[in-house]
Amino acid sequence: MSTAAGPSDDGAAKSPPLTIAQLAELAHVSIATVSKVVNGRAEVGPETRALVERLIREHGYRPQRRRTTAAPLVELVFHALEGEYPTEIARGVERVTRKHRLAVVLSQLHRRDTPGKGWIEGVLSRRPTGVISVFSSLTEAQREQLATRGIPLVLLDPRGDPAPQAPSVGASNWNGGLLATRHLLDLGHRRIAAIAGPGHALPSRARLDAFRTALDMAGVPADPELIGRGDFLVEGGLAEAERMLRLPDPPTAIFTCNDGQACGVYRAAHLLGLRIPDDVSVVGFDDLPAARWMNPPLTTIRQPLAEMAATATEMLLKLARGELLTQHRVELGTELIIRESTGRPIG
Amino acid sequence: MSTAAGPSDDGAAKSPPLTIAQLAELAHVSIATVSKVVNGRAEVGPETRALVERLIREHGYRPQRRRTTAAPLVELVFHALEGEYPTEIARGVERVTRKHRLAVVLSQLHRRDTPGKGWIEGVLSRRPTGVISVFSSLTEAQREQLATRGIPLVLLDPRGDPAPQAPSVGASNWNGGLLATRHLLDLGHRRIAAIAGPGHALPSRARLDAFRTALDMAGVPADPELIGRGDFLVEGGLAEAERMLRLPDPPTAIFTCNDGQACGVYRAAHLLGLRIPDDVSVVGFDDLPAARWMNPPLTTIRQPLAEMAATATEMLLKLARGELLTQHRVELGTELIIRESTGRPIG
Repeated sequence: MSTAAGPSDDGAAKSPPLTIAQLAELAHVSIATVSKVVNGRAEVGPETRALVERLIREHGYRPQRRRTTAAPLVELVFHALEGEYPTEIARGVERVTRKHRLAVVLSQLHRRDTPGKGWIEGVLSRRPTGVISVFSSLTEAQREQLATRGIPLVLLDPRGDPAPQAPSVGASNWNGGLLATRHLLDLGHRRIAAIAGPGHALPSRARLDAFRTALDMAGVPADPELIGRGDFLVEGGLAEAERMLRLPDPPTAIFTCNDGQACGVYRAAHLLGLRIPDDVSVVGFDDLPAARWMNPPLTTIRQPLAEMAATATEMLLKLARGELLTQHRVELGTELIIRESTGRPIG
Repeated sequence: MSTAAGPSDDGAAKSPPLTIAQLAELAHVSIATVSKVVNGRAEVGPETRALVERLIREHGYRPQRRRTTAAPLVELVFHALEGEYPTEIARGVERVTRKHRLAVVLSQLHRRDTPGKGWIEGVLSRRPTGVISVFSSLTEAQREQLATRGIPLVLLDPRGDPAPQAPSVGASNWNGGLLATRHLLDLGHRRIAAIAGPGHALPSRARLDAFRTALDMAGVPADPELIGRGDFLVEGGLAEAERMLRLPDPPTAIFTCNDGQACGVYRAAHLLGLRIPDDVSVVGFDDLPAARWMNPPLTTIRQPLAEMAATATEMLLKLARGELLTQHRVELGTELIIRESTGRPIG
C-alpha cells in the first residue's frame, strides 16, 4: 500500500478499513451502489453518495485488486490552459509516461482554485494510475476520495500549502528570488522594484521574501512603492510597471515573479519610450522558451518545468507501485540565466 | 455505422466485413488472439499480428457492441509539444469534451511525420470515442486500424493532403495569405518579402500561393530573393529575415507564415538596429495570445485555433454517434488583425 493510499491519518478510523460489502451493510444499500460511488459512476442519488462517502471517510475503504484494476492512465490537471507553461509541463510528464506506456489525460480548472464534482467523478470512473495536479490543489474531500481508492496524488508547482501527506514537486523559489535580486545588486542597482504574483501563491511569496532579504543583506532599503502585485499575467506586469516607471524616482531595475509579467514590463517600457536595459533592467522568473526571443533576450531565473514534471511523474509511479517515497517534497534548483535585459544603471 | 468506420472503399472487400470468429477461422488462430490484435493488446507475436491485420484490411472487421464499448475518451495527438499552439488547441477540444463528460488523452509525435507502433497500440487498447490528429497525419495502415475498429478520426490543421475519406478542419489559409499581402500593398509597399513554413506543409503553401497571387494582381513582380523558407520556428524566421534585411535592396515589409517566424523577424530587426514598422513592416499568421504583447504588437492573420479544435471535436462526436457529416472538410475563416507592426513605407 502506498503512503498516499488508505484513510487519512487524522480520522477516527483505527480499525482496518472496510470492504465494499461492509460499507454496504453499514449504509443499508446494495453492494452495487457502494461500488458505483467508489468508482465514480453517475447513477447514484446525491444523498446516498454523501452517506457512502462519509462512511468511507470515517472508516476507510479497502480497495480490492487495486494493483490490477488501475488503468494505464495518468491524470494531469492544470489550473488553466494558457501560454507556454502547460506545454512545458505536459512535455515533462509525457517523457516519463511514454517509457511506461501510460496515457496522459488532460484537464483544466479554468483558473478555479479546486476541481469541481464532475472532475473527481470522471477521475474515479477512469481509475487512473495516479493524479498530478499542477499549481492548483484538491479539496480535502477530493484528496480523501483518491486516497480511499488507492489513487496516488502528486502536486506539481503547488500554489498553496500542500497538505503534509501530499507529495509535491516545486522549484527552489526562494533561492531563485535571491539569485535574481543579487544579480541586480551586483550590477550596481539600488532602486530595485519587484512585481509579485497573486498574493495567495506561495511560490511567488517565496520569491518576494528572498527579494526583500537580498535587499536587506545589502543594506538597501525596500521602498513599498516599488513592490507591485501582479497576477502572473502580462496585464498585471504591464499595469504595475507603468505605475512604477512613472514615479518621480522610478526604479532602475525590476524583478518580476514570472516571465509573463516581465513581458508586461517590456510593453510598459516600450510605451514609455524607455530602453531595456539602458533605462531599466528586467529579470524574469521561469525561463519559458519565449524568453530568449524577447527583445532584448530576457535575463531570468530558470525553473526547470519539464524536469519538475518528469520528477513528479516518477514519484507518482513509485507511489502507484506501492513503494515508499524517500521524500515527500522535492525542490529542483533554480538558476540565473543572464541574457541582455540587465545591465549597469546609467547615471 | 459512421463514414469513418468500415473497411476502406478501395479495398477488395465487397462482402460484408467479418466477425472476430470468422477472422480467427481464416487466420487459423484463436478468437482470443484476434481479439487481442483488434484491441491493441501486446501479447501477440508480430507475425500473427501482421497476418490478422492483413485479413482485417482485406475483408474488413465488424466490431460488435461498438457503441457500448467505446471509452469516454478522445485521443488528441500533437505533432510536437512546443509553444502556445498546443495550449490553444487543447483548450478548444476541452471546451467540447467537458460538455460531453469525455476525457482528453494527450500524446505527441516529437515532430515525427506519423505516430509509431506504440502509439496506435495504446490507442486501440484504450478504445477511445475518437482520435484528433493535429498537424500530423497517420499512416494508411493506422487509419485502417482505426476504421476497422469503428474509431473515427478527424484531422485538425493537417499539414499534408488529407485522404479524401478523412474528415478534417483547417483555416482558410489561402484567403489569409491574400489578406496579409493586400494589407501591405494597400499601405504602399512594393518590395514585399514572404517567409514560408516547411515546404511540405500545405497550409503554408496555400499562404504563399496567395502572397504571389496578390502581388501578381497588383502588378508587383515577386522577387525570388524575397521568398524565404522557414520551419515554423523562431530560428527560421530570424535567419531568413537577417539575410533579406542585409540585401542591397531590402524589403520594406515581410509576411511570415506563422507568428513564431514573425518573432524571428522582430529579433533580426532588433539585431540590425531596424525599427518596426518604420524600417520594416511585419505581418504574422496565427494570432497566438503572445502576438498582442510583442513590441510593437503584431499585425497578424487570425486563425481561430481554439474554434477549429472545438469544431473538429464536434465532428468527431458526430461520427462516433454514427451520424453522417454534411461536409468532410471544414475551413474556418481567417481575419486580418491590424496592430502596430505595419505602416506605410518610409522614403
